[in-house]
Order: sequence, then structure tokens, then C-alpha cells
Amino acid sequence: MATADRRLQPMRWLPSLPILKWCQSYDRDTLVSDLVASLIVTIMLIPQSLAYALLAGLPPEVGLYASVAPLVLYALFGTSRVLAVGPVAVVSLMTAAAIGEHAAAGSPQYWAVAITLAFLSGAMLLIMGVLRLGFLANFLSHPVISGFISASGLLIAASQLKTLMGVKAEGHNFIELTQALIQQVPNIHMLTLLVGVLTTAFLFWTRKGLKPQLVRLGLTARMADVLAKTGPVAAIAVTALLAWALDWKAQGLKVVGSVPQGLPPLTLPVWDLALWQSLAVPALLISVVGFVESVSVGQTLAAKRRQRIEPDQELVALGASNLSASFTGGFPVTGGFARSVVNFDAGAQTPAAGVYTAAGIALASLFMTPALYFLPQATLAATIIVAVLSLVDLGILKRTWAYSRADFLAVLATLLMTLAQGVEVGLVVGVAVSLALFLYRTSRPHIAEVGLVPGTEHFRNVLRHEVATSPQLVSLRMDESLYFANARALEDRINDLVADRPDARHLVLQCSAINNIDASALESLEAIDRRLRDAGMSFHLSEVKGPVMDHLQTTEFLKRLSGKVYLSHYQAVAQLAPEILTSSKTE
Amino acid sequence: MATADRRLQPMRWLPSLPILKWCQSYDRDTLVSDLVASLIVTIMLIPQSLAYALLAGLPPEVGLYASVAPLVLYALFGTSRVLAVGPVAVVSLMTAAAIGEHAAAGSPQYWAVAITLAFLSGAMLLIMGVLRLGFLANFLSHPVISGFISASGLLIAASQLKTLMGVKAEGHNFIELTQALIQQVPNIHMLTLLVGVLTTAFLFWTRKGLKPQLVRLGLTARMADVLAKTGPVAAIAVTALLAWALDWKAQGLKVVGSVPQGLPPLTLPVWDLALWQSLAVPALLISVVGFVESVSVGQTLAAKRRQRIEPDQELVALGASNLSASFTGGFPVTGGFARSVVNFDAGAQTPAAGVYTAAGIALASLFMTPALYFLPQATLAATIIVAVLSLVDLGILKRTWAYSRADFLAVLATLLMTLAQGVEVGLVVGVAVSLALFLYRTSRPHIAEVGLVPGTEHFRNVLRHEVATSPQLVSLRMDESLYFANARALEDRINDLVADRPDARHLVLQCSAINNIDASALESLEAIDRRLRDAGMSFHLSEVKGPVMDHLQTTEFLKRLSGKVYLSHYQAVAQLAPEILTSSKTE
Repeated sequence: MATADRRLQPMRWLPSLPILKWCQSYDRDTLVSDLVASLIVTIMLIPQSLAYALLAGLPPEVGLYASVAPLVLYALFGTSRVLAVGPVAVVSLMTAAAIGEHAAAGSPQYWAVAITLAFLSGAMLLIMGVLRLGFLANFLSHPVISGFISASGLLIAASQLKTLMGVKAEGHNFIELTQALIQQVPNIHMLTLLVGVLTTAFLFWTRKGLKPQLVRLGLTARMADVLAKTGPVAAIAVTALLAWALDWKAQGLKVVGSVPQGLPPLTLPVWDLALWQSLAVPALLISVVGFVESVSVGQTLAAKRRQRIEPDQELVALGASNLSASFTGGFPVTGGFARSVVNFDAGAQTPAAGVYTAAGIALASLFMTPALYFLPQATLAATIIVAVLSLVDLGILKRTWAYSRADFLAVLATLLMTLAQGVEVGLVVGVAVSLALFLYRTSRPHIAEVGLVPGTEHFRNVLRHEVATSPQLVSLRMDESLYFANARALEDRINDLVADRPDARHLVLQCSAINNIDASALESLEAIDRRLRDAGMSFHLSEVKGPVMDHLQTTEFLKRLSGKVYLSHYQAVAQLAPEILTSSKTE
Repeated sequence: MATADRRLQPMRWLPSLPILKWCQSYDRDTLVSDLVASLIVTIMLIPQSLAYALLAGLPPEVGLYASVAPLVLYALFGTSRVLAVGPVAVVSLMTAAAIGEHAAAGSPQYWAVAITLAFLSGAMLLIMGVLRLGFLANFLSHPVISGFISASGLLIAASQLKTLMGVKAEGHNFIELTQALIQQVPNIHMLTLLVGVLTTAFLFWTRKGLKPQLVRLGLTARMADVLAKTGPVAAIAVTALLAWALDWKAQGLKVVGSVPQGLPPLTLPVWDLALWQSLAVPALLISVVGFVESVSVGQTLAAKRRQRIEPDQELVALGASNLSASFTGGFPVTGGFARSVVNFDAGAQTPAAGVYTAAGIALASLFMTPALYFLPQATLAATIIVAVLSLVDLGILKRTWAYSRADFLAVLATLLMTLAQGVEVGLVVGVAVSLALFLYRTSRPHIAEVGLVPGTEHFRNVLRHEVATSPQLVSLRMDESLYFANARALEDRINDLVADRPDARHLVLQCSAINNIDASALESLEAIDRRLRDAGMSFHLSEVKGPVMDHLQTTEFLKRLSGKVYLSHYQAVAQLAPEILTSSKTE
């Protein structure tokens, strides 16, 4: 219904920009809440932006550039009041994988391709939003997303280990990467490893151990949570100061080095059709993954305040954000989980908080970059590792195994293919496997022969219950909508039954679980009717749903049907084989 | 159930060859019935075999070779008692399309590739049968098959027009072919066209006009039907005699010419891995199309006598038939519609009729081929055109349009793509489109808000009926199984509802039409529960089916659920919002 309503007003998002809603009631209290939240998010976003830019193979300042304009655009077009947009781990990894085929990391071409990727991804999101194609993201099942995110987390962590070890190691997949790292063990730079491991340990402690201590010191749980999330900033400040004071750079420890000072530059994507074609698939996958991540964060947080987000409008907002990233020297962005939760917990009331955060990051990129010169790269690697390991959830394998083998297979296929063949192949294979398993399941429907539960008007599976039946009448219940892939299963089942029951005169199909009958299934029903008639039997339906009945009434099927359509299965049996009712009563 | 049983006995087909069943009760009456039927089918099969071999681009005798061994093998392994196996129109067209890329028509290589194609197709059918993969054919929906068969019929008819006109014309698709034919109009060979057109008219008359006349002459309807189907034989005999007597060959009319006399030769497929790889997809498509055609004919005829065919065993039988075709100089074969119906109507009782037919064709290829020397090729083209035009059913477009736009789109896409891009592309695109449309439909489920019909315990859609509701309680009915592609639709709908109903305290989901809940949907239900709890509401389920409940009970979901699971929706409402019951009674 909601969908139909939206379709009637396809341009509704244009005149009613979300900003118009909250802007009118903006007052001093809201301003203070938003400012406080944006300050905390800014502090958190600076190290994340630098780290994810490095993960994507880009200079660190590009991460800052990608955290200014996109936030402003999202504030204008987005429907979530607290979503914080910017570079995120998985999308950065996908960006690195997509660009890696076209340019060498660190080259100017590499950055140009990243900008183009943001442009294509933004354009696709915008087009999907205008065409209301948000539902396409639904075909990424939870098992596929879980497997994909976990495998991405492992891939990212493995790729950061080389920075933590102070060595060089490359590999096209998880196994190659691990092997290269093991070979590099003799070349480990000990000071780098020490800084990296200690930072990692500190960051894990701020995640797990710091909050309880802060609570014990008298802070509220929420404030403790927010404070604990500023751990990466502390790590950066301390290790950068130490590196400067102890001149670690001279001892061979890699630092971030010169980062250009200034506002995000104005840039344009590369206008090269061949490049666009080869980036099209990665850009689409980045768009879809980014959208799914962003929408699930947005929905979770909106629901807590009984607010609502509109997925198709989110596509427009994320599209505008990514387009703005491509015009201001950035790379693909989306709504991030951790930062949005911090924004929410810190009390952000409106998207204006995002604008203030953007201003904060702009100030940082104007004035703070010289302070980053001595920042050890190992510190940034540690922040990434700690962030992404929380994404890895191998327990999903166990949980899906217990619940459903098909879902387990989908997780496993996505996980293994992502680790072995990279993010793009992994994602595509995962979607294909999950769709194939769904089709397989619906093509093998549960079809129960039912009988009357004595003393009631209920019919149940003859295999599970003591029920009354008659050799004259066969009652079947189909537990799936009828469509081309399962219509033949019903035909086969009925053919078998008819061959086994020489005395049967009537077959009644209970349609209570049939939500739709497509043209193939209609032909199957006609074939069943013809065959039953040839075999001297008649074919009846019972409990056909209203919409299905409306549909059938547009055809000749009901007129030609050898039997009748009954409102309830009990009525059908009462008329066709009343002996069942009597036998059921005497029992 | 049936499927599960079969799985427990995966090798059941081995000890119980179908032949063992009917062989024991074989008596004189059955023998006579089978002999009569086989005689009629032999007479019908000879011209068809020649014509379809020419259609496949092969010498005419290859059609006879393909109609001997495969019939014997089918009789041994097949489960249909009346199916007549041999070359058929659509598979011959697909064979021509597959081989055309590898060898020039008429060359020895061309025949070798045809033999290899039969081998690969036979091997695939056999493997699919042993692995019980017959269900894969179910993914060819009726609309796709209809569109494909109609387009194939048009393609075949267009390809035969050049023989009817006595000209040369080639084209890679329907439009090119038609254009080439139009350009050749000035070069038409008038005698050929005359013979072709008159034969075509005669054959159409035997199909439509002859039967009523025969019935008027006192024949039974069945005998009239069978006699009318021997029209092609009469056409062949008369035109061949005329061509000999009037020396049409000297006047430029093309005749079949020398056909080697003798039994089918022993042959082997080409053992060339590169060739196999490039033939793999066509062989698979030929296997699937042949299997679908054969099984639907077999099922229709078996049902008339309350017999049954086993699709997986049919795969084995068709596989053996095609393998035998490849070892005896044949090309891909399958069960044909017209000849099987004739076999059935003429009274065939057992597959032995097929063996007698095979013997008849073997005799024909030993002794009758010299008589074919003067047979005009235009006569064979006319038999093909008349046969395939009966396959063309453009009415399917109108019927599917009326019934379902999705099915209409699937027919149209298959039809147009087959005409424009050939049989292989057409079939693959058709399957992809029909699957995509099915997924699209299930991803947009019908979710109704329901209320109590006053004075009953029934709940109906609030938009369609006058029902009682309460601002405290939201009742939703989901009309689709919950899986990853539609779980978010339910989340969205509930998020919207909750945002719209500030007074709501309970949400009850009526699950009567939910046949399955996958892991993604389970996570969605958990998310819905969490969000409702955050919004101060509780989440209840009602009328959960037994198998779904069994499944949910393996998880933590039911323990964590903020609300309860009710047996009936009425019970849920009675406990959660009893004011609805009262208001409904006072109305």
C-alpha cells in the first residue's frame, strides 16, 4: 500500500526537502544539542577519515575532504536525523579493490579514478532513488551481508598487518596476503610493531574495559560510552607526540608525513567512457553495499525515536553526497555505523549536527594537518584493525547452521568467495547463491494430504495426525504460492496420487496458503483438471484467497473446471464425501 | 513427501527397469495393438525424419538413423508407454543453430559435430537423471516455453520458405531472413513454388478438412484422425511420382537425390575438449528443451490411462536414447508431440510399439531410400512448414496480457529475443526475465492491515471491509513467505505504521500465509521486535504454522520476543484489545 501511494507522487521528494521540516522548529536547545554532538563526532571522525583514506590507497587528506561536502549534502537531502556520512571501512576496501586494477596506489591517476568512482556511484544512487529502485538492495540477504562484512573485515585486518609490522606485503586474496605476511616475519620493524601492538591493545581496552571504569568514576553510562569512543583520538595524540619527542622517524618508523593544508579542492571526474564502463560494476556494488549499510543504521536509530526514514529518499541523499565527494576531491562515502551511534548517543537532534561536523572537519583540514606529520602509520593501522575486527562475526556460521542449511550455505559461499576472490566476486556469488537457494526451496513446495480432525472442522496432514479420510476423495493442501517452478511438483504429486487411488472420484485442493497463481501455474491447474477428467474424476478448490480469486475470474478456468470452488474445505468435504463427517463423529 | 521417499532410494531405477513391468503380461492382444500402432507411426515418421534432418542441416538419411536405436533405448528405459522418440522440429532448429558456428552445412565435419552434440546432450540428460535434477526443467515457465516454441516455429517456417521458393537465402535472425527472402522474390523458381504451395495447401486441408469428410464417410473419429495424419506420406508419394514421371529435376526443381542405402552406421563422437566446451551450453539447452517437451507429452498421455511417468527416469531414458543416436550416426532426439499422440490414438499398449517402429524405419533405410531420389525438397519443406505453424500460438500474448503483466513480459521477451538473437539467447533471456519477475513480485508482498468483521471471529483488510479496530493495537497480515527480499518491506511497513500511530501499544502479525521464514527474515523480525520495544510497544505473532513454529523454536527469538505467540488472531485481540470485541458486538 505504502509503495502504491508513493508511486502516485513520484516527485514528492522534490518539493518537500526533509530540511524544510526540521528547520522551522529549530531553537536554541536544539542548537546546543547539535553542537555538542557534532564536536564529539568531529573528534571521532578525524582519525577514521585519515585511516580509511589510507585503507583505500589514497593520501590521508583525501579522507578529510570526503568528510566535508558529503555531510552537508546529506543534511539537505537525507531523511535520517542522526546518520553521520563519510568514509567507512568496507566501502574503502571496495574502493581500493576497484581502483587497484586501473592505477598504482599513490599515483595521481589513482586519486583521479577514486574521484570518478565516487561520481559514478553517486550518479547511480541518485538515479536509483529517482526511479525508486531502493528495493533492489533487498536482494542482498542478511547471510550474504554478514558473510561479506566478516570476510571484508578479515581482509582489511590482514591488509593492515603489514603496516603494523613495518613491512611490505601484497596479495590478491586472503591466503596470498597471509603467506606474504608470514614470509615478512624476519623483516619486522620492531619499534613499529611495538607502537602498533600497544596501540591496538589500548584501543581494545578503551572499547571493553574503559567504559565500566568511567561508570565507576561516576559518569553516566551514555557519557562513558561516548568518551570511550574517543580512544582513537587519544592514541593518535599520544603516539604522534611520542614520535615527535623521541624522533621515531629517524629510527625507521613510518609516519604520515606532510599533509597539504587547506580546504577540499574543487575536482572533476575523468570523462573517459572506457574507464566508466570498467568501473560500472564496482560502482554499482559500492552503491548497493553503501546504501544497505546506511539504511540499516538509519532505520535502527530512527525507530528508537519513532521517526522514519524513506529508503528511496536515502538513495537520493547518498547520491548527492557521493557526487559532492567527487567534486571536492573525495572518494565514495556512506552512512557509518559507529559514528552515527555516537552522534545519536551524544544527543544530535537534527541533520544540522552534520553541517557543524563538516565545519569542524574543514577547520581541521585547514589548520590541523601539520600536527599529523609525526603521526605513526601504525597507529592508524591499529585504529582500523580494532574497528574492523568488531565487524567480523563468524558466529553467524553456527547460528545459520542451526536455523537453516540454505542460509548457512549462502553465508559460507559469500565468506569463502570474498576471502578467495575478493569483494566483488564474493558479493556477486553470494547474491547468486542465495537467490538460487530461494528458488530451489520454493520449487519443492510442501504439499500435504489432509484429513478431518475428528470432532472439528479442521483439516490436518494425514502423516502427522489421526484424521478421517475417504477413498473417494483426496484432499491436498499446497503450502506455497503456485508459480512456474513448483507447478509441476503439484502436477506430479496429483498424477502419483491418482495412479495410486483407483477409487478416488474427487480431488480438493485447499488453497489457504496460496498467495498467487501465475500463468504457468494456471496452465498446470488446467492440465490437472483435464487429466483428472480423463481419469473420471473432478477437481475442486477450497479456501481460495480474495485476490487470487479475482485473478482467476479473469480467465476461463473457473468456467471449465470439472468441480467447484468451496469457501471452506469443510464445506467441500461435507458435500463431496459426507461419510467422512459421519465416520469422524462416530470415532 | 514423494521427493523425500525417492531420495531414500536413489538407485531405485536400476533394479526396476520399466520394461520388466510390462514384459511379463505381454500377450497376443497387446502384440497386435502395438504392431498396428507402430505401422502407422512408422509411415508418419519417415517423412518427418527426412524433413527434420534437412532442417538441422544434415543429409536426409541421418533423420532415419536417428529414428532407430533411440526408439529401442527409450523402450528399455522410458516410463511412458506411448511416447514416440525421434527428431523433432524445435530440437532440430537448435541443433542447426549450435552446429552452424562450428562447421559448414553439408560438410562431413557438420555431421560429426551433430553426432558429438547428441553425445553431449545424452550424457547430460543421463547425469541429470542419475542426480535427480529433473526439477531444473521446472524453471522453464510456460510463458517462456510458449514464447520460445512460437518464435522457433516462425524461425523454422521462414527458413523453409527459401526451399519452397527454390532460392538461396541466409540470415542470422528472423528479420535478416525475411529481408533476404524478399530480395529473392525475382529469382523464384515457379515450378518449385507451385509444388510447394500446392503441397502446403493439401497438407493444411488434410489437417483441417479431411477428418470431417472421413467421418461423414463412416469412419470413427479416432480412425479419421489417424488417417488424416498420414497426409504427408500421400504428399510425398504423389509429388515424388510426378517428379519422376514429368522429369521435374531437368526443369530445375531440387530433389532429395541419392540417399545411401543401409542400416545406421556405427559412429563415435569427436573427442575434442575445446569443441565440447563450446558445445556445452547448446547441448544443455537442447537437453532441457527436449526433456520439457518430452515430459509434458508423456504426462498428458499417461494421465489419460491413469498411468504415471517418472521425470527423473525419463531423463535417464532420453539420455540413453541420445547416446545411442550418437553411436549410430544420428543427431539429438526427443519425444515428439504429434507422433506420440498418433501412437496413443492408434492403440499402442507398451513401449514395444517403439521397437517395432524402429524395425520399420530400419527396413525403410535398407530398402526405401532409392524411392526418395525424385522426392522434391519443396515437399519436405511444405511438411515442415505445416507442422511448425501449428506450434505458433501468438494468442498466448493476449491471454497472458489479460491474466498477468509479468507473464506477458516473459512471453514477449522470449519471443522477441528468440526472433532477434536466435534460440539460445532467446531461451536464456526468457528464463532470466521470468525469474527476475518472480523475485520482484515476491519482494513486494501484499501486507494488509486487518480488523475484526463485526459479529465473527474473522479478520479482514481494513481497506476492503467495514471492520472494528483499536488505536492501541495494530493487526497486520503478511500474504507471502518471509525471506530476505521481502523482509525489509515488512520492516518498512511496520516502521511507517508505528510512526503514524502514537497511541499503539501492541502489534500482532497474523502469519497464516507465511510458509517459511528464512534467516534474514528472522533477523528482521528480531529488529522489528527491538524497534517496537524501543518505541514502548510489544510485538506478537498469531496463527504461526506448525513447520514454521518448529523452525522458530530452534532459535532464541521466541524467548526474547516482547509479546506472545497466539494460536488464533482472535485470541490475540481478545487478550490485548478486548474493546474491539465489545465495539464489534454493539455495532
